[in-house]
Amino acid sequence: MKIVIDCYGGDYSPDELVKGAITSVNLIDDVEIILTGNKEEIQNVIDQIGYKGDKLSIVDAPEVISCDESPTMAIRRKTNSSLVAGLNLLKENDDIVGMISAGSTGAVLAGGLFTIGRMEGVKRPALAPLMPTLVEGKKVLLIDCGANVDCKPEYLQQFAIMGSVYVKAMRGVEKPKVALLSNGVEDHKGNDLVHQAFALLKETKDIDFVGNIEAREMLSGDYDVIVCDGFVGNVALKATEGTFKVFTSVLKNEIKSAGLGSKLGALLMKKVFKNIKRKLSYTDVGGSPFLGINKILVKSHGSSKADTIYSCVRQVIEIHKSNYIENMREGIKNSSMVGEN
Amino acid sequence: MKIVIDCYGGDYSPDELVKGAITSVNLIDDVEIILTGNKEEIQNVIDQIGYKGDKLSIVDAPEVISCDESPTMAIRRKTNSSLVAGLNLLKENDDIVGMISAGSTGAVLAGGLFTIGRMEGVKRPALAPLMPTLVEGKKVLLIDCGANVDCKPEYLQQFAIMGSVYVKAMRGVEKPKVALLSNGVEDHKGNDLVHQAFALLKETKDIDFVGNIEAREMLSGDYDVIVCDGFVGNVALKATEGTFKVFTSVLKNEIKSAGLGSKLGALLMKKVFKNIKRKLSYTDVGGSPFLGINKILVKSHGSSKADTIYSCVRQVIEIHKSNYIENMREGIKNSSMVGEN
Repeated sequence: MKIVIDCYGGDYSPDELVKGAITSVNLIDDVEIILTGNKEEIQNVIDQIGYKGDKLSIVDAPEVISCDESPTMAIRRKTNSSLVAGLNLLKENDDIVGMISAGSTGAVLAGGLFTIGRMEGVKRPALAPLMPTLVEGKKVLLIDCGANVDCKPEYLQQFAIMGSVYVKAMRGVEKPKVALLSNGVEDHKGNDLVHQAFALLKETKDIDFVGNIEAREMLSGDYDVIVCDGFVGNVALKATEGTFKVFTSVLKNEIKSAGLGSKLGALLMKKVFKNIKRKLSYTDVGGSPFLGINKILVKSHGSSKADTIYSCVRQVIEIHKSNYIENMREGIKNSSMVGEN
Repeated sequence: MKIVIDCYGGDYSPDELVKGAITSVNLIDDVEIILTGNKEEIQNVIDQIGYKGDKLSIVDAPEVISCDESPTMAIRRKTNSSLVAGLNLLKENDDIVGMISAGSTGAVLAGGLFTIGRMEGVKRPALAPLMPTLVEGKKVLLIDCGANVDCKPEYLQQFAIMGSVYVKAMRGVEKPKVALLSNGVEDHKGNDLVHQAFALLKETKDIDFVGNIEAREMLSGDYDVIVCDGFVGNVALKATEGTFKVFTSVLKNEIKSAGLGSKLGALLMKKVFKNIKRKLSYTDVGGSPFLGINKILVKSHGSSKADTIYSCVRQVIEIHKSNYIENMREGIKNSSMVGEN
């Protein structure tokens, strides 16, 4: 199974991306990884680590797309960038099952859309990361979390359908519970978009729509799919990430400035802290798949290190093995969309 | 100084509201509190606690407005509700400086708007809670967090002005740093509304606009005022609250199921946990003032207990002493708004 990793555009490019690739081919059977980017630099990292196997190959594409550039312009102009080269490989080779990039979200999305293309019937592909929840082992899918910052109600309706198909195939949930992110649980809560989306979702037969929820309940574990526009989803996801960071940062500082007793306490609690980190970590979950395009494309966090890249590789394999492409095409084809096309 | 407390509509009504009022009059000099709601029930709580002073009075208004009702309908019809009675007192008596309610947010806002009325020149009053940050003692104002779920760019511009005036008067920040909540830090990031608001904010002379921020940075302590529409603000605030809850809940469960060593560790760390709770607590901060109406109206969390109500009373006094009404009127009058009226 072949997977492409775009080695540039992330905060730790190319080192951590290459390390993640090496971990992946070392630990997972039957995986070959194609690395795109500056060939010399990538080879240097491989040599430093001392990887001698034949599961890695490099495609030289030395241009880099940064977050400051206009995504669509960059995709068009920088044809020899690590991202565009990777997407072209993904598009042209049937034996490449998926791609991972930690680069500019806008460019990854624009590139995915223009190069790989939407599935038939998909109005707007969407970014859909899994988030950890209070319930052990249970994750919740947040869709969309950044691909579509201005949405029509029927986009949200289709996000619900895509999210349900994905969670069903990937996590074996027979009837995923779908909730609409709003500013209150009552049916009348929401802005204009949410009001209209609520009405559509209530009439959508293929899904188990349970109504509005507040952002406070996102991680309760009571839901499988949370639907929102990409702007709101981005805020919800990043507020959650940011709060975890604040909590751990305050905890660390407090321990540092505390007395000996508390320091000893922290030492004794090491295992507890480790468990919490594991349970609430985003690293384990991998990246955000871009659902609704014709291949598997995973956007990894800009700050991804090797362990996250390794998780993303496993994620691509898992998505591939779930027959995601066929399931999603079938799901979209059979869905009973209401509203304009 | 007289303050009204609406004792109904909260999760712990009327007991915790009445307890909070008693704590307030016991601990703060020169404060009298008027309690609105079911007189008999309120008197029972006062008798149970055994308060014998003369700083509390009750205005009998036994109707209750719930969260399930249409806010505007409820405000119009339930004229003998604890909320409407309180608002009428607030409106009609110059010596009543402010009011606190833990009831239905929609009803408090609708009631505040219709009964108390907007300040001259204010397009849309906004809910603006202070949130704790990573920097000790520093709070950040999130405006709007639920009053206006569908906004025009110029509303956001005015939120920035109102937020700046408030933070300057209340917290003595000479030039409050104003950030726009977006899905990325780059100038071109955002949805349609944010793009347009960004352009307006850049041209607004009265404020120190520092650009877009991601939700991840909300609690960094680098900003004084964060501007967004009320729907997005509500999601951001509640995602933050919810994540804190998830973290503490997972921590508690892990300690519960951990070995003796970890349990001892937790005991030793008691002070650290207490400090964190204090630093990151919303209880201390009070409630969300509804900025831009002609009196001080504070919406307290539905789940507020006595200590939060006490914080809200201190908050009303602090706002009153900062000459908020005069400052805000002056600030709005002198502001250089750009865009349609």
